[in-house]
Amino acid sequence: MTDQQKIPQATAKRLPLYYRFLHNLHLQGKNRVSSKQLSEAIKVDSATIRRDFSYFGALGKKGYGYNVEYLLGFFRKTLDHDENTPVTLVGVGNLGTAFLNYNFTKNNNTKIEMAFDADKEKVGEVIGDIPVYHVDELEDRMGSISVAILTVPVSEAQKMTDRLVACGVTGILNFTPARISVPSDVRVHHIDLAIELQSLVYFMKHYPMDQDEE
Amino acid sequence: MTDQQKIPQATAKRLPLYYRFLHNLHLQGKNRVSSKQLSEAIKVDSATIRRDFSYFGALGKKGYGYNVEYLLGFFRKTLDHDENTPVTLVGVGNLGTAFLNYNFTKNNNTKIEMAFDADKEKVGEVIGDIPVYHVDELEDRMGSISVAILTVPVSEAQKMTDRLVACGVTGILNFTPARISVPSDVRVHHIDLAIELQSLVYFMKHYPMDQDEE
Repeated sequence: MTDQQKIPQATAKRLPLYYRFLHNLHLQGKNRVSSKQLSEAIKVDSATIRRDFSYFGALGKKGYGYNVEYLLGFFRKTLDHDENTPVTLVGVGNLGTAFLNYNFTKNNNTKIEMAFDADKEKVGEVIGDIPVYHVDELEDRMGSISVAILTVPVSEAQKMTDRLVACGVTGILNFTPARISVPSDVRVHHIDLAIELQSLVYFMKHYPMDQDEE
Repeated sequence: MTDQQKIPQATAKRLPLYYRFLHNLHLQGKNRVSSKQLSEAIKVDSATIRRDFSYFGALGKKGYGYNVEYLLGFFRKTLDHDENTPVTLVGVGNLGTAFLNYNFTKNNNTKIEMAFDADKEKVGEVIGDIPVYHVDELEDRMGSISVAILTVPVSEAQKMTDRLVACGVTGILNFTPARISVPSDVRVHHIDLAIELQSLVYFMKHYPMDQDEE
């Protein structure tokens, strides 16, 4: 674990992306890949890829590239790909429904196990194989699930966060515009659609020729 | 423009977040704000805020904090807040509908003007005040719109990207899992729901006590 702690966060964010592409190459029977091929496929510049891979102890050989199997083994171990992380989703509106219909288990180690909503019309439905329960049942049903996707209206965001944290949730993917408050041992990743759009426009104007590295 | 070019990209990504919070403070009649207050409200650590603000030439005074009006003026100018950027959305599924219902114009300088879908059932609808047209009409209707949100099925992503680029689009917010190819003068920001979820789980395991800075 000590080695992995040294991976910079910007690099760590690209791990799932690398994993997915290499997994597909492996399925196609490919044994090696160059940083240039990787770069073209996943839209990250090849200098960044080579720097990232050097953190994993993967040194490409000139004229050969990287060994797909070695890299895949490393990523599988690092991303704990043999361990499936159960996830809950709270708020089955349009955004929540999009998540439920998204095929997460393909090439992935997370699985939405259940969803909650306050709307009685939605309770009892099964969307993308995932059952929707009434939010009143949250505390009874959560069990040991530690990851939640928050797609509730902004007015419900903090209240629902508090309930999730009380259930033992330690990671929240927050898609509401609310900046929610959590104890320091709970990790929140925040994705705000309006801010993503505004950020794109800003970057278009001010960094017109840069390549996006995400 | 030269000064703005020097703002690091990580700082630039936080600009819309700062702007929104300061705009709300201003509406409440507040004249000053400390980095600690800002930090608590937007969940970015105060050292990062102070470093970011120093790029804007905003130096907080001890015991006073930052001048809200000065900062707001700076952000409005930097983010071109007096100029409204029209946006198009392609793909009115659950995710696309969530975008259309999202109130972007509040505190924002982007506006979705029109949406496109291939499904005749959706064509003619108006969602969140935005008309949905048939995708066959894309080339006729785009006009000078240069920003697009891509929420089509993955199988349509590259084809639709090529059409958007041919219409003059230079910025795409890509919500499909596809890594789309574009000419070098087109900026793509990519948000992949599966990767965001996997990234959260990875960070929970490997960086348990860090504060998220996004």
